[in-house]
Amino acid sequence: MSTSSYLYQRPAGTTQLNETTQVRIASDIVIGGDAVVMMAGPCAVESEAQLEAVAQTLVSVGIRCMRAGAYKPRTSPYSFQGLREEGLKMLGNIKAKYPLAIVTEVLSVDQLDAVAAVADCLQIGSRNMHNFELLKAVGSVQKPVLLKRGLAATLEEFLFAAEYILKAGNPNVILCERGVRSFDPWTRNLLDLASVPLLKEMTHLPVIVDPSHSTGKRSLVVPASRAAVAIGCDGLLIESHPTPDKALCDAAQALPLDVLTSLLPSLNTVASAIGRSMS
Amino acid sequence: MSTSSYLYQRPAGTTQLNETTQVRIASDIVIGGDAVVMMAGPCAVESEAQLEAVAQTLVSVGIRCMRAGAYKPRTSPYSFQGLREEGLKMLGNIKAKYPLAIVTEVLSVDQLDAVAAVADCLQIGSRNMHNFELLKAVGSVQKPVLLKRGLAATLEEFLFAAEYILKAGNPNVILCERGVRSFDPWTRNLLDLASVPLLKEMTHLPVIVDPSHSTGKRSLVVPASRAAVAIGCDGLLIESHPTPDKALCDAAQALPLDVLTSLLPSLNTVASAIGRSMS
Amino acid sequence: MSTSSYLYQRPAGTTQLNETTQVRIASDIVIGGDAVVMMAGPCAVESEAQLEAVAQTLVSVGIRCMRAGAYKPRTSPYSFQGLREEGLKMLGNIKAKYPLAIVTEVLSVDQLDAVAAVADCLQIGSRNMHNFELLKAVGSVQKPVLLKRGLAATLEEFLFAAEYILKAGNPNVILCERGVRSFDPWTRNLLDLASVPLLKEMTHLPVIVDPSHSTGKRSLVVPASRAAVAIGCDGLLIESHPTPDKALCDAAQALPLDVLTSLLPSLNTVASAIGRSMS
Amino acid sequence: MSTSSYLYQRPAGTTQLNETTQVRIASDIVIGGDAVVMMAGPCAVESEAQLEAVAQTLVSVGIRCMRAGAYKPRTSPYSFQGLREEGLKMLGNIKAKYPLAIVTEVLSVDQLDAVAAVADCLQIGSRNMHNFELLKAVGSVQKPVLLKRGLAATLEEFLFAAEYILKAGNPNVILCERGVRSFDPWTRNLLDLASVPLLKEMTHLPVIVDPSHSTGKRSLVVPASRAAVAIGCDGLLIESHPTPDKALCDAAQALPLDVLTSLLPSLNTVASAIGRSMS
Repeated sequence: MSTSSYLYQRPAGTTQLNETTQVRIASDIVIGGDAVVMMAGPCAVESEAQLEAVAQTLVSVGIRCMRAGAYKPRTSPYSFQGLREEGLKMLGNIKAKYPLAIVTEVLSVDQLDAVAAVADCLQIGSRNMHNFELLKAVGSVQKPVLLKRGLAATLEEFLFAAEYILKAGNPNVILCERGVRSFDPWTRNLLDLASVPLLKEMTHLPVIVDPSHSTGKRSLVVPASRAAVAIGCDGLLIESHPTPDKALCDAAQALPLDVLTSLLPSLNTVASAIGRSMS
Repeated sequence: MSTSSYLYQRPAGTTQLNETTQVRIASDIVIGGDAVVMMAGPCAVESEAQLEAVAQTLVSVGIRCMRAGAYKPRTSPYSFQGLREEGLKMLGNIKAKYPLAIVTEVLSVDQLDAVAAVADCLQIGSRNMHNFELLKAVGSVQKPVLLKRGLAATLEEFLFAAEYILKAGNPNVILCERGVRSFDPWTRNLLDLASVPLLKEMTHLPVIVDPSHSTGKRSLVVPASRAAVAIGCDGLLIESHPTPDKALCDAAQALPLDVLTSLLPSLNTVASAIGRSMS
Repeated sequence: MSTSSYLYQRPAGTTQLNETTQVRIASDIVIGGDAVVMMAGPCAVESEAQLEAVAQTLVSVGIRCMRAGAYKPRTSPYSFQGLREEGLKMLGNIKAKYPLAIVTEVLSVDQLDAVAAVADCLQIGSRNMHNFELLKAVGSVQKPVLLKRGLAATLEEFLFAAEYILKAGNPNVILCERGVRSFDPWTRNLLDLASVPLLKEMTHLPVIVDPSHSTGKRSLVVPASRAAVAIGCDGLLIESHPTPDKALCDAAQALPLDVLTSLLPSLNTVASAIGRSMS
Repeated sequence: MSTSSYLYQRPAGTTQLNETTQVRIASDIVIGGDAVVMMAGPCAVESEAQLEAVAQTLVSVGIRCMRAGAYKPRTSPYSFQGLREEGLKMLGNIKAKYPLAIVTEVLSVDQLDAVAAVADCLQIGSRNMHNFELLKAVGSVQKPVLLKRGLAATLEEFLFAAEYILKAGNPNVILCERGVRSFDPWTRNLLDLASVPLLKEMTHLPVIVDPSHSTGKRSLVVPASRAAVAIGCDGLLIESHPTPDKALCDAAQALPLDVLTSLLPSLNTVASAIGRSMS
């Protein structure tokens, strides 16, 4: 690791608990403060009814950030590619109706204006962490960016991807650990939880965890979420769906809404065990 | 994964919280019960004075299991190979003086009798997880066995290694996640915490976590320990040394004794957040 | 692996030696025929003089494909990002002057028209193998596409990336093995040569090998090239530079031009040992 | 990599082609000379008749080294564990009858005397590359040792494993690349052919390749063998069986005897293309 000075670097002498950059997604939603922020919602926008069901649940339990993809990057061209422009429109309608901030993915430079018109936070997915032209483009807008770690990205590569955004003028970057490629076929991805405190030693940027993609299995999402809070993450990004078994993508890992809401009390308890809270 | 029936498998219909095999290391030390058991001590036995200092600290804070290696498997033949027979004798002296159970590694079949005469729990290290002749041999004694996951072992291979011991007649196997090989040079090993609940879905054997070897870095051991408890491990195996910077092996990851003891209250709080305790 | 039928799949009953799709880069340059095609040139376009020196050498030894990047994807935003539009112009000048086909990389959809105006073959780099919007876009033009395997892409993911291009209407896809991420810091990437015959069992698409990025070390490029030919590749993509130690990117792996030309006779001999030739 | 001086290191200024240690397995079989040595035979000793069939074929085509395991390390304790002592006896009978050198695996220190009484070359398998007590033991006898690279061993770890043997007094070590663990389920192991020239830059020890375990698939063994010769290996270790589909272990990768013999002419041609021969 070079000793040069980068924008992502923690100033010498600061520690992780008192000097994390606070990224403001909405007037009252801050990532990187005392509270661990929950973001939840379906993998993909599928219908207005689906979004309504999710939104009502989130609002009822005080979750303020909704995630849902209109544009979906899929390994196979024959898999559902997202509702795209139509999906963005549905997200806009939800946002007009509920007090929710929207986190949604942008896949290419030419989609950026349309996505940024709806999103409160732009997601860059794992498969685009090395799409440097896209990183430069989201660096030129002033929306917060949720940057996911690449499938097999080292932490140095991850921080350099963030640096592309920071250098282009956008200081509002949230790092998201989402598991890395494993040699073990039992594991969809290998959740690298120790990367959270390790990243926080190197960077002042907030770090959140996606326990859904990283484990790929519904039964692991609850314990992995607790561990992510215990290890010091600044937020969680959890897939949840009104009817997971009918989800059009990543069905195996989506939590039913009632499991999502029942998870919150134990997360609160773990957060308070390390002197934080959930929001 | 075969659907055949193996000795390691969880009986159908049982869940992880009420049907974990309890492995008794001493009359009052059980791995796999409600309490999460702390095991701590130096990487290697170095001297009587070193063991005394550790033992006094462990006893003073109620830790009942001491780990320390007399035989050390080292990548380079020029690295310290352990005090061997002399180290075993020192461990025997400590055991005679303090109410501590001893966990120590056995590297080959011909060392087994000597190690078993001192150890309360035989450790099989990562590099020997695939040493099937040794697995058969420890399966033929009735000492508990702490089996570490191999450097790049799949969970299926890990469970089959346990099966060698179980099939040979020894039911007292404790699985230990200790990180797997990573592509990222920033990480000594990649701690696979999600393996804890995943293993517990497949097996009735207790699962502990080694946050020291898996992270390789002192500053990560404390948050990783909290996360391991939060995700549901049955024990922790932590390297601790009176003067870590002078440790003869793995100095970078050993906790000073005062950090070890100061970690306990927050582990207690995390454990209670998920309905367990520390012991 | 699904048994569904995909466009990339080899028709049942065909074998790799008589049924490979021939991708025509120029009127007399075919990838996937009897001849193993050499493509060589610098990592990045740096100057007219540099391109001239390379072009003269290539033409003098009968190499017909020149590779050079105008747009460079770089891990760090502070690394040389390529001469971009200016570099494309230089490539156009070289093409007007020498009987060389140009292989050059396109990084994003908005660059596609400009790159396609100069390139005879569009390169999609490793970091964009999962950039599905770009794959769809290059699928809609009729230029041949050289698709590099992702840093940690499985062969199934690699073939699905090709399928995006094929499905969008462009049948001219060349697969390029370029090494995958390794746990060993001694190896920049791990060259997966066995992927060549394995891919050829699955797909009718031609498969070439990049021995430069895959090894990252000049001294390994020569033996790796011979092995690639021996294992059955349809082409080689080799980095070569007039003054490698002054190269603006990937200096450690570029061959001096005289080493490149001195390599050709032994490649011819290896090719003839398996009943093929070099072109 | 340390700059200290190790026994495995190539003396400064020597190059791989004129300063490889020659390990003599029999009076007229040398590994590390001009000739690339073929070693072939079944994964496991199964019966006298099986060994007879293999031996007659090997002798008829001039192959002088036979490999076959009496002791088998298997992932599952329920898999065939080898004929063990009985298998050693069968190997002894074959050796008495045919002019073949025997390469066979030793799994633990207590088997060493019995195995060494029959073997001309002791094999240390991948799973025991980190079994340091066994390495020390084979270092104390004067039989040649064929040391396989561990499943996920770095080249530095591989060389340090060799150093254990060299330091204990046995200079006759042959390194064997046999593939490393991969993230791709299509590949049993990932054959790291570039490790051959990379190892030869670092060490004077001869390096051979096992194309059978490294690919795990019969159809890949022939092209991988050609590539291994082209890249500069000093020998090949190939699994071959009279009736592969009935083999008791690793059936998918064993070559029928007629395919083995038909492979030889093309290996000769590739070897001569780089100035070597096969023996």
